Amino acid sequence: MTEIQAARPPHSPVRKRRSDGERSRNAILREAAKLATVDGISGLSIGRLADAVGMSKSGLFAHFGSKEELQIATIETARVVFDEQVIEPALDAPDGVARLHSYVDHYLLHISSGIYPGGCFFASLLTEMDTHAGPIRDRAVEVMDGWIALLAAAARDAQAEGLIDASEDPAQIAFEVEASLFLANLQFVVVQNATPLDRARRAIELRLAAAAPAAQRALG
Amino acid sequence: MTEIQAARPPHSPVRKRRSDGERSRNAILREAAKLATVDGISGLSIGRLADAVGMSKSGLFAHFGSKEELQIATIETARVVFDEQVIEPALDAPDGVARLHSYVDHYLLHISSGIYPGGCFFASLLTEMDTHAGPIRDRAVEVMDGWIALLAAAARDAQAEGLIDASEDPAQIAFEVEASLFLANLQFVVVQNATPLDRARRAIELRLAAAAPAAQRALG
Repeated sequence: MTEIQAARPPHSPVRKRRSDGERSRNAILREAAKLATVDGISGLSIGRLADAVGMSKSGLFAHFGSKEELQIATIETARVVFDEQVIEPALDAPDGVARLHSYVDHYLLHISSGIYPGGCFFASLLTEMDTHAGPIRDRAVEVMDGWIALLAAAARDAQAEGLIDASEDPAQIAFEVEASLFLANLQFVVVQNATPLDRARRAIELRLAAAAPAAQRALG
Repeated sequence: MTEIQAARPPHSPVRKRRSDGERSRNAILREAAKLATVDGISGLSIGRLADAVGMSKSGLFAHFGSKEELQIATIETARVVFDEQVIEPALDAPDGVARLHSYVDHYLLHISSGIYPGGCFFASLLTEMDTHAGPIRDRAVEVMDGWIALLAAAARDAQAEGLIDASEDPAQIAFEVEASLFLANLQFVVVQNATPLDRARRAIELRLAAAAPAAQRALG
């Protein structure tokens, strides 16, 4: 152990303190992500963002050299938020079914929290960019595929744990879970009440109950 | 019977022949609907449409006085196409469950037929306009609500016919059916193969089988 390491108080995390520049960049990008769920990622420009955050265009150009750079940085910021709010809370789930329920609960919380006026950032991004070949569409597809793969992995784990019947297809379950979440997100943006969230939750609960091993269902 | 009526040959339908102007207007609007599923209804302008159909801007201005008039007319044209391709074929279905299956089959055919490069016109329209108050958003919401109400009505009829258990909520079934269709549409645009269509069909078949009256399920 070197002298410098020993001098650090115990339990003090070795976390890099964010500079003012980084904090400000992050705040700007979170604002950009909000705007993108309303005007689209294509509608996101340095000029429009400057108006929204009350900075000069030249000040923003110092952060982001081009519109595309800003768009990519916005997507990565939204990705970090999604990880923090939806994926990480499920890490402690004791089994695959509990992990699926955690993803669902936190996704519904995430979209109904008001963080984005246009609902799920990635649903919005992919529906806008799906026909526009290029790095933004590719990244949107990659994030959506990664999310559905996580749902399928949880279903596969639940199967290995004997909580989902061996006859079920984890990819099919992932599709059905995501289908309910995707529609709940759209409807929530329109109606701004809990009805679609409740419908999605109920649909997924019923589906996972129906997917329980046959022996367990017969007892239930 | 008057002399004029008697003079009409038997079985000759009293159908108004479309004028060249109307036919051309319709062809232009179908092209506009295709463009709107790629660039959005906001991206639809008389100038851009003129390029796409190879007409002069002034020629298009003769058809549509403004961008908003063009947008509304495009939505109504897409609505007619949806009615013809998805809703009308189900009119002859013998019962509520058959009608639900007909809606599903024809919707999946509609989106995979390639009529719109960006998939379902109304899914595209609503995801774009959901946060933009105004007549276009209102019309998009109205069409989506009407479609989900049709699904719920078919489920309600099936319940009255003893084909769906009395304990089921027709609105919940409509949500689940539309959820699978909505995600299948997005995924089809991205992957351009039948996997998401098959997943949606399977999800809906399983759901309707699970919704059969308890007595029937026990026999099955």
